[in-house]
Amino acid sequence: MARKRQKLSIIPLGGVGEIGKNMTVYRYGDDIIVVDAGLKFPEEEMLGIDIVIPDISYLVEHKEKIRGIFVTHGHEDHIGGLPYVLKQLNAPVYGTGLTLGLIENKLKEHGLLETTKMYKLTADSVVEAGAFRVSFFYLNHSIPDTGGFAIETPEGLVVHTGDFKFDHTPVDGRPADVHKLAAYGSQGVLALVADSTNAEREGFTPSERVVGGKIDEIVSKAPGRVILATFASNIHRMQQVVTAAERHDRKVAVVGRSMVNNIQIAIQLGCLEAQPSTLIDADDVNKYPPEKVVILSTGSQGEPMSALTRMARAAHRKIEIVPGDTVVLASSPIPGNEKYVARTIDQLFRAGAHVIYRGVHVSGHGSQEELKLMLNLTRPKYFVPVHGEYRMQKTHSELAMQVGVPEEDIFILDLGDVLEFDSGHAQIAGRVTAGSVMIDGLGVGDVGNIVLRDRKLLSQDGILVVVVTLSKETGRVLSGPDIISRGFVYVRESEALLDDATKLVENTLTRLVADNVNEWSSLKTAVREALGRFLFEQTRRRPMILPIIMEA
Amino acid sequence: MARKRQKLSIIPLGGVGEIGKNMTVYRYGDDIIVVDAGLKFPEEEMLGIDIVIPDISYLVEHKEKIRGIFVTHGHEDHIGGLPYVLKQLNAPVYGTGLTLGLIENKLKEHGLLETTKMYKLTADSVVEAGAFRVSFFYLNHSIPDTGGFAIETPEGLVVHTGDFKFDHTPVDGRPADVHKLAAYGSQGVLALVADSTNAEREGFTPSERVVGGKIDEIVSKAPGRVILATFASNIHRMQQVVTAAERHDRKVAVVGRSMVNNIQIAIQLGCLEAQPSTLIDADDVNKYPPEKVVILSTGSQGEPMSALTRMARAAHRKIEIVPGDTVVLASSPIPGNEKYVARTIDQLFRAGAHVIYRGVHVSGHGSQEELKLMLNLTRPKYFVPVHGEYRMQKTHSELAMQVGVPEEDIFILDLGDVLEFDSGHAQIAGRVTAGSVMIDGLGVGDVGNIVLRDRKLLSQDGILVVVVTLSKETGRVLSGPDIISRGFVYVRESEALLDDATKLVENTLTRLVADNVNEWSSLKTAVREALGRFLFEQTRRRPMILPIIMEA
Repeated sequence: MARKRQKLSIIPLGGVGEIGKNMTVYRYGDDIIVVDAGLKFPEEEMLGIDIVIPDISYLVEHKEKIRGIFVTHGHEDHIGGLPYVLKQLNAPVYGTGLTLGLIENKLKEHGLLETTKMYKLTADSVVEAGAFRVSFFYLNHSIPDTGGFAIETPEGLVVHTGDFKFDHTPVDGRPADVHKLAAYGSQGVLALVADSTNAEREGFTPSERVVGGKIDEIVSKAPGRVILATFASNIHRMQQVVTAAERHDRKVAVVGRSMVNNIQIAIQLGCLEAQPSTLIDADDVNKYPPEKVVILSTGSQGEPMSALTRMARAAHRKIEIVPGDTVVLASSPIPGNEKYVARTIDQLFRAGAHVIYRGVHVSGHGSQEELKLMLNLTRPKYFVPVHGEYRMQKTHSELAMQVGVPEEDIFILDLGDVLEFDSGHAQIAGRVTAGSVMIDGLGVGDVGNIVLRDRKLLSQDGILVVVVTLSKETGRVLSGPDIISRGFVYVRESEALLDDATKLVENTLTRLVADNVNEWSSLKTAVREALGRFLFEQTRRRPMILPIIMEA
Repeated sequence: MARKRQKLSIIPLGGVGEIGKNMTVYRYGDDIIVVDAGLKFPEEEMLGIDIVIPDISYLVEHKEKIRGIFVTHGHEDHIGGLPYVLKQLNAPVYGTGLTLGLIENKLKEHGLLETTKMYKLTADSVVEAGAFRVSFFYLNHSIPDTGGFAIETPEGLVVHTGDFKFDHTPVDGRPADVHKLAAYGSQGVLALVADSTNAEREGFTPSERVVGGKIDEIVSKAPGRVILATFASNIHRMQQVVTAAERHDRKVAVVGRSMVNNIQIAIQLGCLEAQPSTLIDADDVNKYPPEKVVILSTGSQGEPMSALTRMARAAHRKIEIVPGDTVVLASSPIPGNEKYVARTIDQLFRAGAHVIYRGVHVSGHGSQEELKLMLNLTRPKYFVPVHGEYRMQKTHSELAMQVGVPEEDIFILDLGDVLEFDSGHAQIAGRVTAGSVMIDGLGVGDVGNIVLRDRKLLSQDGILVVVVTLSKETGRVLSGPDIISRGFVYVRESEALLDDATKLVENTLTRLVADNVNEWSSLKTAVREALGRFLFEQTRRRPMILPIIMEA
């Protein structure tokens, strides 16, 4: 029985027009596969929000069609949304060893480990998933065991890269699988869906091994302890630190919960090699001479509660920065974190450390020449730049044009856009529900724009609660008005202002009651307006005003 | 009558360990002069705060001793605190023409223009100010009419640079006064107090003229309008835009209030030259063909309410971005603004503009080679790096050591440190009150840590107000409890939660009343704790809880 001919759709639910929460849907008829399920961190105006995940209404609506979730690598912006997705729909998860190791940890926390089927991918994996036949290929990135997917569909072959760079001298000895990519290109690629993060950077991103050389030099020359902070998922870099320490006869202590967790997983899975005697407990650091110690730490982004930041301000339980220490920030600040990083560096300087905060980092994303290499290897008919803000997608498009992809065959998609392929012809054929779901504590999506607007107001000028009791019979003021303020002014220094405000409310109410106005809503509005005007005149501030009228 | 021999003190009240609110006090016996009176923009955690100025308690305490406020240049971080200072103490203000022009505008807004004496400085100005004899010398910076002060004191000569770079091909044809600096060096400099902003940058900062060349090329090649955003105070850059426009037969429209103001002042004072027919009104832009128009705009930092940002999101009254426009961000993001700038660039891309956002900017601050040049020209006995965060001051110190200043003659001061010079010997001799005063609306210093802590709490999880009326006689609940929430959850979707919370409060109060607990403070504490625990269990959030108990 021949399958009825259907169309292929590619639908980004995350990761376009933004950095983070990567998620792409592939649909052919009644079969859906999903690539990645990431989170992103909240924008500044999302006050109190912990994380943001994609709106997956479309997937929930079609959950019986989902044949699998394919994960490119273990970074939060590719796996962080999984627990929330798996609570709403059950689908098998495919990923490499390390990726699954990191996912397992998450699912355990959310009580989802038993109900989720996970399948490990290797170099030769081919997965039949409904109408799709998905092969895995290795790429380089700032976390081991990273790759992309070659997705065979009835419409043709789609290559989906995930995050990548081409590292010709990778730390784990496994370069990107250029042979497979070249073979896809020869075979014919319908569409390339590729990472745009570094589309704005010229040239080639240096090999991670360059960082290793610098780390080795620092460790060999440091007169005392070396404290090196980097991303907790950058196992390759951690490996290079361990290797340098072993070469120079130093012990390695690991601090910071996520780094301790990840290093355990990486060792178990064979992604990180260390002699059994190299790793020591953070409690034992002081048992060794300073020149025999390297400390691997979280906090390279200046996160206020991270190990390095706590060490820097002398608030870490186990380790304190002292003169003679060499502190290395093997990272560069993620946009938005610059001020936190600068603050941490300053505190480290003040603590007397020698601080190295530039030049011990390379990006995990390919620069322009690598993006062009990917385009030339795969020679796609259609090109879909993803994983980037709009200008990155746009710049990536220009690179594609440079290597010969016609402008009309490039699609810069927005969230929810349905890119449809029908008999080899592509067009944007509609849009499905897509966007952001904000997570605050246990609440998924229960904080909306009204709540955020209130938090914004409250954060700027605070709140005044005005409480008054009116007589049931006469409508007259029985007690109050009492004004309670939070986040507005320091009460002790503003007594006169609050006294005047109280009198104003009293007069306003008395006048209204005399005029026989007695609907509470009118009274509240009058109080809010009169008090708001008065306070703005007096202070040029606009606190939230919450009138509470009681009856007795 | 010989003056009694006194000590010289240098006291930074702002601009050390931080970027911004520059202010340095020089005292000799009963004579004080102040160099600069700047503001800084609030840190992220200073919610709702508009600006931050130095704590000038020390100056107020000694206000009868103040002989003058000497201002190096017209940037906000050097003049922005003046209105607040002049409200608390009256002192003559010394500055160059443009600097005073910008100050005048400020004082007018604050009603201080009549009561403030202002004296204009030129290349040959020497001011006798009590024990001090202050000469002015020109330097280069990103605003014209910038300089520093040579302060003769009975203890010796102090050179105070303000912000500077050495531009050998300056736009206004006036290079930094290296001859005077060399002469001071020959004469003997007791101490150099110098700008550390770019101490971390290697090499030489390029000349502003380099930017002019790029602007000219962009203007000559652009197929349509050129919209160029830069700092509203960078008159030199604005001059280069005007020059390029005139060379290529284009008109110039200026948008953004601060830029319109500054360009008027600059033209009046002869700091900016434009043919009368070049400048056109923003309303008339559409009367000219696009290839005949340049628009100078504010908003190069992606400020949400600025002209460029409003144009980018199609919310500007007069000008809309259309395909064919070339938009130039002649700036680099100030730390903390990266995300805003990126967002604006993205919106410009989406609007179809060709956006040039890199490479059309040079810093106004000297890099390492220039800082060393300043040190070598002035050959100070003591060195005081200012205007920078701690790591910049520290790195500047290392440069000074490289050119031969002994480590023990370098003083990295904290706010309020008193650096005392006595018979040619320097030491830190104490500390005066110093710090930050936060300005929120009309309130100067009335927002303290308690208010900020409350704003932070409110911004994260909002507030719940719990209102209940108890009977005067029995102590029993007469009405309520009513729970009103703002910024916590969206009420309509959380009715069950709030119902349960209400019942919990009711039960808590009933139980306490039955146990004869009736002090309001105990009741409030019990409500706050029970409700806080319940809400945290249910939501993992910690809203502020404000119990209000009334009696009837």
